[in-house]
Amino acid sequence: MIYLDNAASTPVHEKVIEEMLPYFKEQYGNPSSIHRHGRLANAAIQNARKKVSELINADSNEILITSGGTESNNTAIYGTASQSKGKHIITSSIEHDAILEPCRHLEREGYKISFLPVDRYGSVNPDDLKKEISSDTCLITIMYANNEVGTIQPIKEIAQIAREKNIIFHTDAVQAIGKIPIDVKELGIDLLSISSHKINGPKGVGALYIKNSITISPLILGGGQERGLRSGTENVASIVGFGMACKLTKNNMNENVDHFKKLTTRLISRVLSEIPFTTLNGHPDIRIPNNTHFTFLGVSGEDLIIKLDENKISASTGSACSVKIQKASHVLKAMGFSHEQVTGSLRLTVGITNTEQEIDETVDVLKKVVKELRAVSPYKSKYNF
Amino acid sequence: MIYLDNAASTPVHEKVIEEMLPYFKEQYGNPSSIHRHGRLANAAIQNARKKVSELINADSNEILITSGGTESNNTAIYGTASQSKGKHIITSSIEHDAILEPCRHLEREGYKISFLPVDRYGSVNPDDLKKEISSDTCLITIMYANNEVGTIQPIKEIAQIAREKNIIFHTDAVQAIGKIPIDVKELGIDLLSISSHKINGPKGVGALYIKNSITISPLILGGGQERGLRSGTENVASIVGFGMACKLTKNNMNENVDHFKKLTTRLISRVLSEIPFTTLNGHPDIRIPNNTHFTFLGVSGEDLIIKLDENKISASTGSACSVKIQKASHVLKAMGFSHEQVTGSLRLTVGITNTEQEIDETVDVLKKVVKELRAVSPYKSKYNF
Repeated sequence: MIYLDNAASTPVHEKVIEEMLPYFKEQYGNPSSIHRHGRLANAAIQNARKKVSELINADSNEILITSGGTESNNTAIYGTASQSKGKHIITSSIEHDAILEPCRHLEREGYKISFLPVDRYGSVNPDDLKKEISSDTCLITIMYANNEVGTIQPIKEIAQIAREKNIIFHTDAVQAIGKIPIDVKELGIDLLSISSHKINGPKGVGALYIKNSITISPLILGGGQERGLRSGTENVASIVGFGMACKLTKNNMNENVDHFKKLTTRLISRVLSEIPFTTLNGHPDIRIPNNTHFTFLGVSGEDLIIKLDENKISASTGSACSVKIQKASHVLKAMGFSHEQVTGSLRLTVGITNTEQEIDETVDVLKKVVKELRAVSPYKSKYNF
Repeated sequence: MIYLDNAASTPVHEKVIEEMLPYFKEQYGNPSSIHRHGRLANAAIQNARKKVSELINADSNEILITSGGTESNNTAIYGTASQSKGKHIITSSIEHDAILEPCRHLEREGYKISFLPVDRYGSVNPDDLKKEISSDTCLITIMYANNEVGTIQPIKEIAQIAREKNIIFHTDAVQAIGKIPIDVKELGIDLLSISSHKINGPKGVGALYIKNSITISPLILGGGQERGLRSGTENVASIVGFGMACKLTKNNMNENVDHFKKLTTRLISRVLSEIPFTTLNGHPDIRIPNNTHFTFLGVSGEDLIIKLDENKISASTGSACSVKIQKASHVLKAMGFSHEQVTGSLRLTVGITNTEQEIDETVDVLKKVVKELRAVSPYKSKYNF
């Protein structure tokens, strides 16, 4: 099996599993308990929180642990909106559904939501953002890197604009974390979402960075854990695993990025040169190093995935983080792609466990299956495949 | 170490860990992905969901997986309220904070909340419920068994009253599950919350049973997982572990209950006969079998926990599921306890790993430390200890 869907989820690192196991077997205390079992669990969480904070150069007390990226995004949006007088939110048209859906919910409740356009590379233009800002704007939320095409947004510039206008700025960094160094202080970010299972940590845990000066409302109420911002018994083992995943990600950043780049450079180069009528989507340079996203003209991406799957290769058309309703990618549509370009797309995302040999094997299979599919394509005569 | 705080959290069962491990190492796919890795993850979730449903005699599609009991309770309350025209909720005065806090939040938003009183055993009187119901009542939420004193509520009778008045009935069964058989169909329950880590499953996962005919709104929006009711990549390994924990709980119910009863009967009998000025709190008979809750007059429960901790015994004053703010138990206050009775309380809750020898050792230590604390008690002369 060759797994090239690391943007959807990643294998849990061996060291992360090792770190988690004692918290199932022996250190199973409830962190709110005052006895030894409880204190050990609580110390483990604080230790993990520190590791999470260090990955993005935040302070420990600026890290809110959540059940994952989606909850982090929901908390950022609802938690800010309910604290603000303003009823206007600016986001982009290519956000993940975990941003778009809470925004649409607020829209139904009377908020005004501006969905910024993107260019053909999937980049937001900061000038478009400036034009949308009004005295009623309470939140700007723009993703760090796109989950489908991998384009990195001009986050520092956007954060600066937000700061000048005194508007809270949130970024969904679920796809960017671990793929580029992120320093929240240097970037001037107010709120930032990350997820554990995209960086070889366990699923079901993530974080929202909340700058010390920012106040947000909790989404889930109860026992008052996470300083009242997220109630519920802490998911100790997973938090500990997430902490270790963050530590490994920080320590191995350069090495990992080099590895990702080596693999994707080879993949892109071979695919574009060996398979005709194929384009790389997203920004050619300003993109996360683990992502490749292609359009194979005249081919259905769905069919391609099934063929690859038959050849023991796991790939994706784009976002995995939504139910299996086959709807055309809102990201590619926003980038101005034609129906044919949208449907012919395939995302291959590499991770720390992939090898150059797997890339070569994948390209060989791709060449074969694209050829097979194009032989029966309705577009056959158009391109003279 | 003797762990007698199983109501706060439990060790994860060896078979549960075994079941989870492959989902970290090999089956790490995102359940929303259409390739083999994704399909295997998705199948694992559906398999686990079935096991969860079987524990409470629900259908698989009536199980919403959440991040735990607190989220289940929040979802039940907010998810019902936002679907209803009525603005009145009835609950009890001895609920867990994960019920009370969302109710108070709605109260601030204009809802009317009735907090039913309890008698000195911590029992709700169904007649009190009947009196509170109005045409505006949209939800009744009464816990199955109390987390501090263990009293079981007349859930079947309450569910019947709710059904007759066509009002949605939710019960927080986090403490009851695995301690008494629960059949949602036979009881006529609409919504029911359970948590994995109270039944030897991992933390960070739980479920809300939602009867097929009931519609609720989601708390967290995004990719549309859990049929749109709970977005976010599914916590596969934990869900699989939760499923196994439910299966073991169902299969071992009689054996576990017998074990709990044997231990608590011995504990209660020895404590009451060997330590004077001591009472058992909660209902003498209608209580979950794993719970014991005592008041040692003239002693501070906090001091008792610290002394027990020094003797390597983990115990609790009551709820562990709240931050370490030392506030007097709202449960004991609602039961009409005096300040002295409240502060002198101790909860010892047994689990599947405890032994009779541990119980005997605990009673021996308890006798010693209660005596020590009473020797310096301000109530010394009052009772002539």
